[in-house]
Amino acid sequence: MNILITNDDGVYADGIFELANKVKAIANVYVVAPDSEKSAIGHAITIHNPLMVKKVNFRNTDIDAYAVSGTPADCVKLGIEAILEDIHIDLVLSGINNGPNLGTDVIYSGTVSGAMEGLVQNKPSIAISYDGKNISSKEYEKGAEYVVQFIDKIKDNLTMLDDTMININIPDIRDTKINGFKVTQLGIRRYENTFEKRIDPRGNIYYWLGGKTVELEQDENSDVTAIKNGFIAITPLKYDLTHYDRIGRIMKEIQPLDI
Amino acid sequence: MNILITNDDGVYADGIFELANKVKAIANVYVVAPDSEKSAIGHAITIHNPLMVKKVNFRNTDIDAYAVSGTPADCVKLGIEAILEDIHIDLVLSGINNGPNLGTDVIYSGTVSGAMEGLVQNKPSIAISYDGKNISSKEYEKGAEYVVQFIDKIKDNLTMLDDTMININIPDIRDTKINGFKVTQLGIRRYENTFEKRIDPRGNIYYWLGGKTVELEQDENSDVTAIKNGFIAITPLKYDLTHYDRIGRIMKEIQPLDI
Repeated sequence: MNILITNDDGVYADGIFELANKVKAIANVYVVAPDSEKSAIGHAITIHNPLMVKKVNFRNTDIDAYAVSGTPADCVKLGIEAILEDIHIDLVLSGINNGPNLGTDVIYSGTVSGAMEGLVQNKPSIAISYDGKNISSKEYEKGAEYVVQFIDKIKDNLTMLDDTMININIPDIRDTKINGFKVTQLGIRRYENTFEKRIDPRGNIYYWLGGKTVELEQDENSDVTAIKNGFIAITPLKYDLTHYDRIGRIMKEIQPLDI
Repeated sequence: MNILITNDDGVYADGIFELANKVKAIANVYVVAPDSEKSAIGHAITIHNPLMVKKVNFRNTDIDAYAVSGTPADCVKLGIEAILEDIHIDLVLSGINNGPNLGTDVIYSGTVSGAMEGLVQNKPSIAISYDGKNISSKEYEKGAEYVVQFIDKIKDNLTMLDDTMININIPDIRDTKINGFKVTQLGIRRYENTFEKRIDPRGNIYYWLGGKTVELEQDENSDVTAIKNGFIAITPLKYDLTHYDRIGRIMKEIQPLDI
């Protein structure tokens, strides 16, 4: 099995290292990741600048690793179509992200966009995030073990991922007993955003985005609830954003449809 | 009615000017848009840098306009929560984009992400794109007229947009007779991507992303088909990416769920 791994924390982050290092026991691993942190980058791709690619030493392992001056989506596109064009990639992984990507977070998430681009490229794809702060290599290593367990569960039947990607969130093992995997739906995540207004030395106005998550009532099947109860949340995602249930209503409401 | 307008081509682009200039006949208009082009930026938000905000002269009109050193999603978030916090925004528009945002394009689109952020902020929101090349002010002006017509159809019943945003694509009026509006679903857009490999003067490898759209068979209800047949495509979108139809299958396939 050939696995392409990307992330949004950058090629030098601990999360991608522990993931690649664990996964290489069961597959050939190729790392193609941003040369610097690209969090909250959404599904951006680089069209107005060239993408610089550099082969990098991946902490003295024998893993082929490339640093790209782009986003996670760029890395997956460029990895599959150019850098590794002679290799048949069987699976795309994105992570392990430093922090969770739950509920509405996923539309902003670089980690998820890396896996989503894998799906656009018709590859089984999985995004992995760790719900913790100040995460050390030890936690990422344990997280990577869970990922390997999950790959083991699906590897003989990858067609189940032919039109869906998987978004995995791992609870913090330092304060949660892991109870197993749970298949979930996206919950609701809202932030009480606080833009802090400041004035620079030249008198110009600028803002810093701050904010913390708001506690909201969640569906019992949501990823947010699962994580809270010690389950590794497994959420199937798609990229078709059409709100099919609303087509009929909108059609009726905007009559007549002529100009 | 108070309308916030953003885009991804930047505050100085022709598309946003013609839109704002036409819409101001039916509403109070506030422009908050990126200070430079942010195409294919996806739903990126700026969390590691401050956002600079500058009030700008909007082509000698009396429209309040702000240039922000961020993405379309930043502009909408910052506009509603900070710059215009004392004004009740009734509707968010994003566009008119220079080029279409059809089918799978929407996951990469800065234009769509501006309107999607409006929906996250619980505002009725509409993204507007024009399917043409070398679009002049005249085409944008006509496009803006259609947008005003559409707003007219929905303005007394904005609750229909309480959990959905609208993605509008306008066919090129220079080579298509406009037959009316059509409510559609996202079609399939695939690109034959071609990464062109080059070597810089210092011997480093870099790639340019090229590529053209591949002609694919489309559902007759798709936005791609509608545009082709001279209809203004109206696609309701949501941000919940959960692939609900796959939850049961994935649950069955990955048994047992324990660690």
